[in-house]
Parts: sequence; structure tokens; C-alpha cells
Amino acid sequence: MTDISVAGDLLLKTTTLQLDNVVAELRDVRTTALLNRQGNLNPPQLPSRKVLAGIIDGLRTALYPNRLGPSDLAVEGVDHYVGHTLNSSLRALLVQIQHELYFNSGTEELNHETYAQAAEITQAFARRLPAIRRILDEDVLAAYQGDPAARGIDEVLVCYPGVAAVTWHRLAHELYQLGTPLIARMISEIAHSQTGIEIHPGAQIGKSFFIDHGTGVVIGETTVIGNNVRLYQAVTLGAKSFQVDEHGSLVKGIARHPIVEDDVVIYAGATILGRITIGRGSTIGGNVWLTRSVPPGSRITQAQTHND
Amino acid sequence: MTDISVAGDLLLKTTTLQLDNVVAELRDVRTTALLNRQGNLNPPQLPSRKVLAGIIDGLRTALYPNRLGPSDLAVEGVDHYVGHTLNSSLRALLVQIQHELYFNSGTEELNHETYAQAAEITQAFARRLPAIRRILDEDVLAAYQGDPAARGIDEVLVCYPGVAAVTWHRLAHELYQLGTPLIARMISEIAHSQTGIEIHPGAQIGKSFFIDHGTGVVIGETTVIGNNVRLYQAVTLGAKSFQVDEHGSLVKGIARHPIVEDDVVIYAGATILGRITIGRGSTIGGNVWLTRSVPPGSRITQAQTHND
Amino acid sequence: MTDISVAGDLLLKTTTLQLDNVVAELRDVRTTALLNRQGNLNPPQLPSRKVLAGIIDGLRTALYPNRLGPSDLAVEGVDHYVGHTLNSSLRALLVQIQHELYFNSGTEELNHETYAQAAEITQAFARRLPAIRRILDEDVLAAYQGDPAARGIDEVLVCYPGVAAVTWHRLAHELYQLGTPLIARMISEIAHSQTGIEIHPGAQIGKSFFIDHGTGVVIGETTVIGNNVRLYQAVTLGAKSFQVDEHGSLVKGIARHPIVEDDVVIYAGATILGRITIGRGSTIGGNVWLTRSVPPGSRITQAQTHND
Amino acid sequence: MTDISVAGDLLLKTTTLQLDNVVAELRDVRTTALLNRQGNLNPPQLPSRKVLAGIIDGLRTALYPNRLGPSDLAVEGVDHYVGHTLNSSLRALLVQIQHELYFNSGTEELNHETYAQAAEITQAFARRLPAIRRILDEDVLAAYQGDPAARGIDEVLVCYPGVAAVTWHRLAHELYQLGTPLIARMISEIAHSQTGIEIHPGAQIGKSFFIDHGTGVVIGETTVIGNNVRLYQAVTLGAKSFQVDEHGSLVKGIARHPIVEDDVVIYAGATILGRITIGRGSTIGGNVWLTRSVPPGSRITQAQTHND
Amino acid sequence: MTDISVAGDLLLKTTTLQLDNVVAELRDVRTTALLNRQGNLNPPQLPSRKVLAGIIDGLRTALYPNRLGPSDLAVEGVDHYVGHTLNSSLRALLVQIQHELYFNSGTEELNHETYAQAAEITQAFARRLPAIRRILDEDVLAAYQGDPAARGIDEVLVCYPGVAAVTWHRLAHELYQLGTPLIARMISEIAHSQTGIEIHPGAQIGKSFFIDHGTGVVIGETTVIGNNVRLYQAVTLGAKSFQVDEHGSLVKGIARHPIVEDDVVIYAGATILGRITIGRGSTIGGNVWLTRSVPPGSRITQAQTHND
Amino acid sequence: MTDISVAGDLLLKTTTLQLDNVVAELRDVRTTALLNRQGNLNPPQLPSRKVLAGIIDGLRTALYPNRLGPSDLAVEGVDHYVGHTLNSSLRALLVQIQHELYFNSGTEELNHETYAQAAEITQAFARRLPAIRRILDEDVLAAYQGDPAARGIDEVLVCYPGVAAVTWHRLAHELYQLGTPLIARMISEIAHSQTGIEIHPGAQIGKSFFIDHGTGVVIGETTVIGNNVRLYQAVTLGAKSFQVDEHGSLVKGIARHPIVEDDVVIYAGATILGRITIGRGSTIGGNVWLTRSVPPGSRITQAQTHND
Repeated sequence: MTDISVAGDLLLKTTTLQLDNVVAELRDVRTTALLNRQGNLNPPQLPSRKVLAGIIDGLRTALYPNRLGPSDLAVEGVDHYVGHTLNSSLRALLVQIQHELYFNSGTEELNHETYAQAAEITQAFARRLPAIRRILDEDVLAAYQGDPAARGIDEVLVCYPGVAAVTWHRLAHELYQLGTPLIARMISEIAHSQTGIEIHPGAQIGKSFFIDHGTGVVIGETTVIGNNVRLYQAVTLGAKSFQVDEHGSLVKGIARHPIVEDDVVIYAGATILGRITIGRGSTIGGNVWLTRSVPPGSRITQAQTHND
Repeated sequence: MTDISVAGDLLLKTTTLQLDNVVAELRDVRTTALLNRQGNLNPPQLPSRKVLAGIIDGLRTALYPNRLGPSDLAVEGVDHYVGHTLNSSLRALLVQIQHELYFNSGTEELNHETYAQAAEITQAFARRLPAIRRILDEDVLAAYQGDPAARGIDEVLVCYPGVAAVTWHRLAHELYQLGTPLIARMISEIAHSQTGIEIHPGAQIGKSFFIDHGTGVVIGETTVIGNNVRLYQAVTLGAKSFQVDEHGSLVKGIARHPIVEDDVVIYAGATILGRITIGRGSTIGGNVWLTRSVPPGSRITQAQTHND
Repeated sequence: MTDISVAGDLLLKTTTLQLDNVVAELRDVRTTALLNRQGNLNPPQLPSRKVLAGIIDGLRTALYPNRLGPSDLAVEGVDHYVGHTLNSSLRALLVQIQHELYFNSGTEELNHETYAQAAEITQAFARRLPAIRRILDEDVLAAYQGDPAARGIDEVLVCYPGVAAVTWHRLAHELYQLGTPLIARMISEIAHSQTGIEIHPGAQIGKSFFIDHGTGVVIGETTVIGNNVRLYQAVTLGAKSFQVDEHGSLVKGIARHPIVEDDVVIYAGATILGRITIGRGSTIGGNVWLTRSVPPGSRITQAQTHND
Repeated sequence: MTDISVAGDLLLKTTTLQLDNVVAELRDVRTTALLNRQGNLNPPQLPSRKVLAGIIDGLRTALYPNRLGPSDLAVEGVDHYVGHTLNSSLRALLVQIQHELYFNSGTEELNHETYAQAAEITQAFARRLPAIRRILDEDVLAAYQGDPAARGIDEVLVCYPGVAAVTWHRLAHELYQLGTPLIARMISEIAHSQTGIEIHPGAQIGKSFFIDHGTGVVIGETTVIGNNVRLYQAVTLGAKSFQVDEHGSLVKGIARHPIVEDDVVIYAGATILGRITIGRGSTIGGNVWLTRSVPPGSRITQAQTHND
Repeated sequence: MTDISVAGDLLLKTTTLQLDNVVAELRDVRTTALLNRQGNLNPPQLPSRKVLAGIIDGLRTALYPNRLGPSDLAVEGVDHYVGHTLNSSLRALLVQIQHELYFNSGTEELNHETYAQAAEITQAFARRLPAIRRILDEDVLAAYQGDPAARGIDEVLVCYPGVAAVTWHRLAHELYQLGTPLIARMISEIAHSQTGIEIHPGAQIGKSFFIDHGTGVVIGETTVIGNNVRLYQAVTLGAKSFQVDEHGSLVKGIARHPIVEDDVVIYAGATILGRITIGRGSTIGGNVWLTRSVPPGSRITQAQTHND
Repeated sequence: MTDISVAGDLLLKTTTLQLDNVVAELRDVRTTALLNRQGNLNPPQLPSRKVLAGIIDGLRTALYPNRLGPSDLAVEGVDHYVGHTLNSSLRALLVQIQHELYFNSGTEELNHETYAQAAEITQAFARRLPAIRRILDEDVLAAYQGDPAARGIDEVLVCYPGVAAVTWHRLAHELYQLGTPLIARMISEIAHSQTGIEIHPGAQIGKSFFIDHGTGVVIGETTVIGNNVRLYQAVTLGAKSFQVDEHGSLVKGIARHPIVEDDVVIYAGATILGRITIGRGSTIGGNVWLTRSVPPGSRITQAQTHND
């Protein structure tokens, strides 16, 4: 037997995989796709999901430096930490916003207005951060008050995926409203991957919002949610059917998701579809399938199960 | 056109985002929140989720060094690897336990008893590790025997999210019982994020437990599960309603989740709520909504679907 | 008060956790398990999940270098980037394939045929990559056309978890067919962890496949899916019951999951179990529980919910 | 031939190196040494060279943020960057200072005074930083003015090893004077490793000091250097002989290195030994060996070389 | 005793270092220096030493992929590796060159010509790489032939600091000639730090050049070295004295270093100063101090040492 | 002005550097060199300098775990740390040794004997580690006793470059003697780069050896050094001239460096060349140039310098 790793390495290094053909074929597929889609071989750059993940982490620690920041952060140094983190995160965001504006413009001719627009969006976003922190504090309090298993405010802040998803959403929604929907969507999908909760950045959500457990929640683009609403895992606030135009293409941008008024509770697995309204103070039971509006104060439950 | 990256960098460096105001406003929100919540500006440090993630990874590789440890681990070196990994992981855990004990005590005056308590918890936890490994071996075997797609024990151990979630749970539950519920919860949420399976660390789970597929499973704090139980994806073992006290606040800590006896199978999407008992050997069908106890040997299924 | 970190460090360093016993007990459990399972203390190495994650990331960027590759990739350098990435990813894959072949063989005696087989599998896999890219382009187009919230092809490619899961699946399925089911399963579970979508690598999936939202989707090993099929979140294509042989052991490898024909849409939460056929062009409503075949053109919906 | 890497890996994993004996023997040597040197097996921790290297890098970038800090540092964010960097670097330094004070005390009983002393040293050091920056600016100017190859102030600051070594020295010397000679020495040796220039942190050095090229320069502990002094590579300012006490041990701490007055230039390779004085304005030629004082304005050169 | 690390951490976090004053004072020093030196507070960015170090590492591996590249580089993949490495290294270099051109221009108004100039320099540099590899092969051969301790060509290439320093020099010299002297100097100082050998990038060096041992070698900016020259450690080829203009400032850019003709050997510690010529085939002995030209074929040695 | 970074990035991505020609030319140079030197295009792999640096760091921390190991190393865990570190470091070394043996063999046909030889060398090296630790303890003591600036044993161990260089040398020398001179040389050059001290791994060095300051020291391959020898910076123990054979090639492997007997001190900058003997107890003065043997007890000094 002559089985030794050096010889194995050698064998591996000299085995040919005939990749030149694969590279050439991949080039053919790629260039064909590029030419079909964009008419040239030089595609504009997209915002980077990885960079955005770092930016959002930075913003979260700037919002909650004592709880989510570095463990050795000294009391005396908090403001410098927040200032430094905002500076680097927001300037990185400005560059990503430029990428999106440029990508959307479909032109290679950039001008000063585009840069100025990206800077204005970033500044407007920065100015909103204190208000976002305030509303997040209310969300955290709502989570604490709504879950008997919660032992304290801080546990809720650092543990609950529902709170993390709402934090990302409130940042993403701001960017969505400021005119960068692609960046907003990327942030929303980063949150989706980590929490199992998908909230489209277009969704409008009121104060003191709480999602418990959360895995499988889907909240659609044109959803409107009032104050003091509570959702459980696997709730869908979705569209019922899609409008098509005369060519059979989907009509995009129409309000097609539910309106959930103040003080509604929706239990696990409920599916609520279409531009219907769940009246103020209603309770929707688990696994309910609902495609029509219900008046304020409704209590909707599922058909019974039974023994074989 | 004068579009060059150096000039762009320069523009970016000199664009002002007026962050000083944002930093000041964030300080106002933060200090107000701190004073309201804790009465001082010097909050105690929480255990770190990131550090705990590393500790748990270390413990898993110490439990299964050949399967989850480094690929170049030599047979001769396994014990040293296990010993070294336990040493560093458990000492890091001791520090995190101190943080939790101190955080819970609400005092800045620490004394030797607190340190001694943290050390005792760590030692007690360490002593439990061999028993945890034994029970995990039974879980893995149950997974292998319960899934026709499983090709081997090792595939189950390294691939199945249900097995990963149960491993984390058995470690977290031990810490929960030893008096560190916050650390336990953080570990549970790390597992939730990676597997989509949420098991509250307070849940009591018997031997040979298997969750197949797993995404969306929720198992509540006071759940009690017997031996040889099998769950599928999106099963909820939850609370039906929450008790409130005379001030309208939730009463925390009451037994409010199901008891699942030995040899029960619960299929995908079933929702079982409240302090009810699922009798030994029962089978609960997919998507079933169940809020009452069922006797041993029951077979519960959902109402039929039908054509339009 | 004499509370200083240096002294604390000292205390920590000198506290004994009595780990020698723990190490010894863990060795006992481990060696017993090894002897029971394999008959010797020298277990073969499994493929590494972490290494596979890196390989798959490499392959995805080689397939879509402009969209998923490094942000500074120059037009002139794309082919070199693709070639270099394929070279290192595929050679790393070859080593992992060797591990699986060796692990499966249950022997310590390796021979040249095994290496040659691993190299052939890798070469065959490499040759399939351009075709995989072509079919993925169709999947991306189907997603764009099927979701009114999608603003563009590129947003779909970089944001949608359904697209990511299908990409991983098409790579994993190829490896499954080429004889490395364990590696294929590991890749599938990496995708499951990141997207909440579980597709067994054995599943056969036609062209223009789209999973929207996706969290909680489970697609079983022997599932067969036609062209132009669309699934929503939490859909299960599962097995109804498992066959046992005369010894009470599960019979593995039997076709036990649904056949979904062309142009079928299955809405959120539907559970479809057993080797049944969903006829071409059918629509299965949300939360439906279905265990029998339905003819082409069927529209299946759930029983109604109702008010209390 | 059956030479494949998997089998090689296997061989490597199962080859025994009989390390248990080596571990045991190393333990014997180690514990014997510990008992001889310290009388117990629980040695106090030393300051960490690696941690100090990071601290010093932090301090250098805080002193010159535009030149040595991150390339994306915005004008608006410089103060926050400096504040954050000082906060984390100096707090890390405080911990290292505690280690040294504790190590020096030779006791396991720490008290508040030691902590307070470490904090005072750190604060005193912090207060000196602006003055250090001012004096470094003069050193940089001297380097620019003294080297015909220097194209600009910034080139000197970022390229010249002599400037780097003097920067480290001025920081190390401050710490030496404040009572932490071990930390100071470690910093000095980090600089030595990177620049080839060794300046003992005890050396007193005046304004506008410049070392050109620098490799091989040695400046001893009790050296005193005036203003406007320039040295070239491989200059030694050393001790001539060492005093021994009645037991034959070296007497430590005696002034034994040269005094170099203002406006002296010492060319490459000159060796100047003992507590002698080089008078103001003197020039010492290359490779000169000098062990006696010279008056102001001297010009010392080496004996001639000659042809064979 | 209440000495525990958590309390120590707390103490550390709450100790004030009064850094706000330090930050403010540092700002004063910094802004004064900036205004004095540049007239504005917005300094242009320098090329980055750290980025250049990565670029040069990339270029070295592209020149010698089998010897200095990654250990798993397959024969089939070498060209793709080289192409990819050149692409990313040279584009990063182009950006650094822009920084230098912009920095030198002293203007904030950039235009297309500057970018075009940076691109041209990069292209010209790229075209020179094959010739640089050829000349380096001759240097390596000269080292092998000149050192009895050398066991093989490859040992020389990967071990010898003299070879590393010459490699860096040949790259730096090219950039120096193409008009980026600051980048060239930074590269030269990176080599100096790692090898102890300082070669100013302006120095002109012929073929088959070898520096043995190398520590302390200094080769000045206007040095001219012929073919087949060999130097030993601590050799200085320096300037004798510096010309000053009527204002007392150094005149920069004058030829002031030696000319070393073909086939010269200079032994360790020799110091050769001024624009003198060492005639072809001469040998300069160790520690010699030489400030006058010597004719071809000279053998120069040091004065004798003697016993006390 | 339209100078924005996105446009700059775009420009950079689309600028062509015409690298295909460069890649092709580099291939030509490379393949010509390979064919000339080795006769085939498939060069064997060299040991890796980077991997060796990691191995040596591991071994140093295994020798001195309390001083050079991780700062959180607990007393209880030292043996496990040492065992684990030795296991991984020495197995990595075994692989590197295989590379060297294979490289030296000049054959692609490996057999079991080569593996066995690599394993034996590794085992022999491992067995020597306790003795190396013992002799290093004596070196450290010698350094402490020989330098008036040394405050303690531990300062010497962690600060002094001379001690670091001797540690590396004693490990490298062992490997040199065991038959892996290339690995030994690489280790020696890693030490050279970090300390400025070059000790050829072939040099034989007795007990209680101390190099003070160290930069520029060169100790040649066939040097023999007795016990209690002390060197200062820039000392050369070199060869005087090289023997050539009848073809004009250097004769390699002949004893050509000095023998330094016990209790010798050699001061800074002394150059001692050729196979001469420095008799026991001699003192060689600074900058001395010595090419003949001196009897025991000699005191050699340099010629005097003088004033102009």
C-alpha cells in the first residue's frame, strides 16, 4: 500500500477537470443572457447584500449600544462609539444607495444630481433614527407585556426574533419610503433568513407591534397594520389573486393585502388574503383562512377537528 | 465627463451628514429609557449571544469530536482536544453565568457568593455532559429509525435540523434548570434562527425524541413531553390563553402548555394549545387544531377539504 | 471593595472545574458508541458541511459572477474569475466526494478505482454546470413573472429565498444523481437553514419552478414536479405513511411522495401527502389537506371558517 | 498504486506520535521551573505583547487619523473616530497596566489601590497624548529637512521606519516614566521587530530627532539625547562594561550609556559606548568606535582603509 | 474578598478617563498642522501601505504561482489563477496610483486625463511583468551559484531575504520610473521591514544581482549597479554629504550615490559613500569605509585589528 | 463636475488592462523555466513557509504555555492545551516533512517507506521537546544574568529578540539534524525576518547562549559555539572564502565557519570569518575584523579612531 497524503495531493493537483470548456460554455450562457436583458455586456452593479448586512448591524448597535454593542463599551465612550458607527455605516449606505439609483436609472451617464439625491436620502434616513429608536422601544415593551414567558425588557430585546424582524423592518421601511426599494427588500430578506419572518418593506405598521415566535410569518407589500397589533407564528397577510393586464402580465403596485386595524390579535397559522379589513379589536383564531372583511370586535375561529 | 473614483471618494469623505444632532438625539432617547427602566445610566452587562454561540459550538464538538470536530483530528489526540475545548468553553460560560447572576441581582455590590454560585453552576453543568451525550445518542437513533429517507446514523447527526435543535435544547434546558434562564433562552434562540425550530428551554422532553423537517415547530415553556415522541414541521405546542391578574398584567410562570405522553406522533402543522394531555400512543393528524385533552390511543384528524 | 478584573481573571484561571472526570466519561460513552456502530475506534471522516457551504458559494458565484461575485470584478476579468473559482471549488468538491465514497465503502482499503470514480463524478458534475445555469435563468424568469411585488429580474435573483433554495437544489440534485447522496443532503440542509425551505435532493423538479416566500416548504425525496409549477410558503409535499418490513423496520427508497404535473399552483400551507398525482393545471388552495389524486384542472379549497 | 489523499488523511489520523509522554515530561520541566522561580504553580499573567501591539496601533491612528487611520474616514467623523479609538485602546491599556502592577507586586492579594493606580497611570498617559503629537510633528519635520530623498512630509510620516520607531518610543517612554517598564519594553521590542531599530524605553530623547535608514540602531536605557540630533543606520549608543557587585552579579540601573548633546550627527555604524558626552554640534563619522567624551564641535572619523 | 471579573469589568466600564479634553486637544493640534501644511482641513488621501502590501503579495504569487501561490493550486488552473490574481491586484493598484497622482497634483479638480494617466501607468506596468520574471530568474540563479549553503533554486526563491528584497525592488523600481515614486517608496519600505534590506526604488540594478544575508543593507536613491554584483549584509551604498542651496535647504534629486560596475563583490559592513565609481571586477572587503573611486580590479580591505 | 464614486467604479470595471497577453507571456516564461529545471510541468510542492510559521508558534506556546499561550489558559487546563497544541502542530509538521522528503526524492513514485520516515522524524522531534525546553530555560537565565537592563526572567522570555531567535534555532537545528534542512532553513528565515538575527539551522550552539540586541547577527552553517557564549548585535560568524571545484562551481558542505569555544564574548559589529578558533574565555571587541584563530583568554580590539 502506498497511500500517503502527499501523493494524494499530487494526484489531485494533476487531475484534469477539463474546465476550459465549462468556462467557455458559461460565458456563452452569460453573455446571451446579458445581451437579451440589458443590451450590453457591462451590467451595472447591484447593491451588495453582504455590505447591507454589515450596515444594518452597525445601525442596530448604534440604536442600542449598551445592549447590542461591544461588551467592553465604557459609559464614557458611548457617544463616540455611536458617532463613529453611524459615520461609517451611513457613508457605506450612501454608496449602496448610489448603486441603486444608478441601477434604476438604466444609464451610464451619471451626474451630480444623482449623487446629491443619494446624499439627501442618507441624510433624511439619518434624521429618522431617533424616532425609530423611540418606536422600537414601544415595540419591545409590547412584546414584554404580551408574552408570559418574557422575564424582562432586555431579554425581549436580545432574544426575540419578532423584535429583531421588526427592527430591521422599521429601518427597511424608511429606506423604502425614501426611494430605495431594492435595498429595502434586501434588508428585509436578510431578516427573513435569520428569523423566518418575512415582512415586505412596503408594509405600513403602527406602534406597539409584536410578533411572537414568528417563524413562517408573511406580511405583504401593501399591508396596513394599526397600533397594538399582535401576530403569532405562520400568520400570512397576503394577496388573494393577482390582476393581469390585457397582455396577460401581472399588474404591479396595486393595493392587494389586508388592512389590520388597531388592537387586533391574529393567532398562529391564520391566513388572511386580499384587500380586506380586519376591524379594530378583532381576534382571528389559529389556522383560520379568511378572505373577506370582518367588522370591529369580531372573533373568528376555525372549523372543528374531530376524531376518526 | 470627469467621473473618477478618487474624486468620488473625496466627495464622499467631505459630504456632511450632520450626524452630531443624530448622536445627541439618540443619547436623549437612550438616557431617558435607561433612567426610566433602571434608575441609573450605567446598565449591567447582559450575557452575549455571540459568545454563547461560540460556547455551544465548542460543547457540541466536545460531545461529538469525531463527527463535528476539526477534520484533521487524530485518534491519538481526541481526549486532549475534548479536554481543551471543554476548558475554554466552560470557563467562558462561567463568565457569562456571572453576567446573568449579576444582571438578575440588580445590584452593583458583588460578593464571593455570587462567584461561587456561578462556578458551582458551571461545575454541575459540566458533570451532566456525559449523560447528555448518552441521551442524544438515543435521539439520533430515534431519528434514524423514524425517517425512511435517512441513510445512516451519521447522516442524521450532521444533517438533520431536528437533531441539532434537540442537542441545543438539551444543553439549554440543563442551564435553565440550574438557574440561568436568560442564557438558556439565548441558546434556544440561536437554535431557532439556524433551524426554524423554537423550543423554550423550560420544556421537559423525554428520551428518543425526534422532530422531522422541523421548520415552524414551537414548543412552549411549560410543555412536558414523554419518551419516543415524534413531531413534524410546523407543530405548535402552545398556550391557549394567558391569565391576567387584578391589574390586567399577565401572570407569568403558570403551567399553560400541553403534556404529551409517551409514544405520541404529531403530524405537520398541528396546533395543540393549553394545559391539555395527549394520551400515550395517540396520533394527531396534520393541521389539526386541538385545545382539549385526548385519551391514550386517540387518532385525531382534520375536517375534510373539498372541491369547489 | 477589592473587585478588579485582574484578580477576577486570576480567580477564573485557578477555579477547578474537575474536567478530567468529564473527559474520561465522555471517552467511555464515545468509544462504546463507536464500537457498537462501527466495530473500531477509528471512524472514517464524513464530508464537511462547512467546506461544502464554501464550495456551493463558490459555484453560485461562478454561475452568476456579475450578480453574486465580488463587487470589484472587472469585465475583462470575468472568465479568469470563473475559471479560478471553478478550479478551487471543484477540486475541493472532489476531495469531499472521496470522503463520501470511502465512508460508504465501509473499508479502510482504498484503491485507484475509488479515486477515479470521484474524479469522474466531479467531471460529470462540472460538465452539467452550463445547463444548470440555463435552467436557473428560466426559474428566475418564472419568479419575476409570478410575483407582482418583483421589480426586476436581478431583484429576484439576489433577494428571493425561493430562488436561492432552487439554485442549491439543482446543484444538490445533480450530485444526488451522480451517486453522492450524503453530500447532496448536506447541501440541501445548508439551504434549508438559510431559507426555511427544505427540498430533498432526490426530488425531481421541472423547468420554470417558483417558490414564493417559502418558509416552511417541505418537498420529499421521491417527489416529481413538472414544468411551470408554483408553490407558496409552508406547502408540504410529503409521505402519508411509511411501509414497514416483516421486522418492523421502515422500508427505505420506495416512491412515497406526490407527483405534481405541469402548470400546477399550490397555495400557502397546503399539505399534500402520499404517492398521489396532482393533475396538470390544477390549483390547490391554502391550508388544504390532500391525500388523494386529483384530475387535471382541479380547483381544491379548504372548508370554510366561521364566526363564533 | 493506491495513493489517494483520503487514505493519506486516514493514515495521518491514525499514526501515533506517543505524545502523552512528551506532555508529561513537559509538565515536569514546567512545574519544576515554576516552583523554583515563583514557589507556586499558579503564575501571574504577564501583559500580552499581541494586545499591546493592537493598542499602540490604535494610539498611532488616533494621533494621525487622516494619515494612518481607515481610508474611508470622513472629515465629519474624525473626532468620533479618535474618541472611540482612544476609549477602546486606553481601556485595554488599563487592563494591561493592571497585569504589570499585579505581576510586579508578587502577591495574589489585590486591593483597590492597585486598580486606582492603574487608572491614574492611564489617565496621566492619556493627558500626555496631545503633547506627544506636537513633538512627533517636529520629528517628522526634522526627517523631511534632513533627507534629500524625502519628497514630502507625508511620505516621511507613512514610509520612514525611523519615524515609526520614534513614535513608538515616545509612547513607550511615557509609560516607562509612569511606572510600567515591562509594558514599555514590550512596545519597544514590537518597534524593534518592525523597524530593526531598538530604543530602550528608558532613553531620554529631545526634540526634532531623526534616525535615517535605521536598521541596526541600538540606543541604551540610560542614554540622554538632546535636540536636533540625527543618527544613521547601525549606530550604537551602548554601555562599555557592566559593574558587578560583591557577589559577581550585575548592578542594574546605573547610568552607563552616552549623553549626546544638541545638534549632533552620528553617521552609520558608529559605536559609542559608556557614560561619555558627545559635545554639542559634534559630528561622529561612520563606523567610528568611541569610548571617551569629545568636546563640542568635534569631528571624529575612522582610520583609513587601504589597498592590498 | 470580593474580587470577581464581572465586577472588575463593571469598574472598568465606569472609570472615566476624561477623554473629551484629549480629543479636543488632539483636534487643535491636528487642525493647526493641516492648515499650516495644506491650507485646508480636507487632506487628500495617501496611497495605503496595507493595500500595497496585499497588491505586491498578489503580484509575487502571479509571478511564481507554483512556488508562492496557494498550496492546492492545480496544474490545470494556473493560468486562471494568474489571470484572476493580476486582474484584482492591478485594478487595486490603479486606484492607488490615482491616489498618488491626485495627491501630487495638489488640486481637488480631477479630470479624465488623470484617470487615463493612472490607467496607462498600470497597463505599462502590467506589460513589464514577464520581463521582470525573466530577470528575477537570473537573480535567483545568481543567489544559488553564489552561496555554498544553498541546496537548490527553490530554497533560494522561498527562503532568501535578499531574493525577496530584490523582487520587491524590481517591482517598485518599475513604478518609480513610471511616475509613482511614493507608491514605489512604500513598497520598498514594506520590503525593508520584512528583510532588513533597504533599497531605494530609484536605484538602478543590473542583472544577476545577489544580496546574501542582507540585514542592514542600504542602497541609496541614485545608486547605479551593474551586472553580476554581489553584496553582503550591512553594506551601505550611500551619500557622502548633502548639497544645500543658498537658503540652506537640501538640494534634492542630485546624483549622490555610488556607481558599482559589473562583477563587483562587496563584503559585509562595507560603507561606500558618494558619487564614486567602483570599477568592474573589484572586491571591497568587510567593514571597509570608502569615499573615493577605485579602478577596475581593485581589492580594498580594512586596516588590521590587533591584540591589546 | 460629475465626479461620483459609482461612476468611478464603473470606469474601473470597464477599463481594459489587456492582461491576456501578460498571462500568456508569463506562462511562456514559467513553463520554459520549469522544463529547464525539472523536465516537466508538474513541479512537486514545497513546504509552506506560512504553515511552518503557524507550527512553530504552536510549538513555542506548548513549550511555554503560561507565558506565550492564550491569556485565559486555566491552571487546570494546561496539559490538555499542551497536548492539543502538540497534536495539531506536529501532525501539520509531519505533512510538511513529507513534502520535503518527496521534493528531495525527485520522484513521483512515493512509497510507504517515505511516509514512515516522515513519521519517524516527527516522533523523534517530539521526543526532543522536553530537552529543548530545559536548554531554553538555561538560555533565558543566561540572558537575564548577562544584561543589566533585564528586570526579570519573564521579561527576557517575552521581550528579547535574541531569546526568540535562539528558541526558533533550537527547534530548527533539531529538524536540520533529523534530515529536513529545507524546513529548518525556512524556520530560520522566519526568525530572521522577525528579529533581524540570522542563524543557519546547521550551526551547533552550546548551553546558556545569549545574543543581546541582535539585529544584524549572522551565524553560518558550519559554526560551532560552546557553552556560555554571548554575542552582541551585528556580529558575523561567517565564511572567509568559498572553495570552487575544477568546474568553477562552489564546493558545498565544507566546514568554513568559526569555532567559538566556551565563555567567549563577542561585541557588536565584530566580523569573524573562516574556520578559525576563538579560544575559550576570549573577548572580541566591537567592530573587530578577525580572520585568524586566537588562543584562549585573548582580548582583541579594533584599531583606534582619531580626530580630523
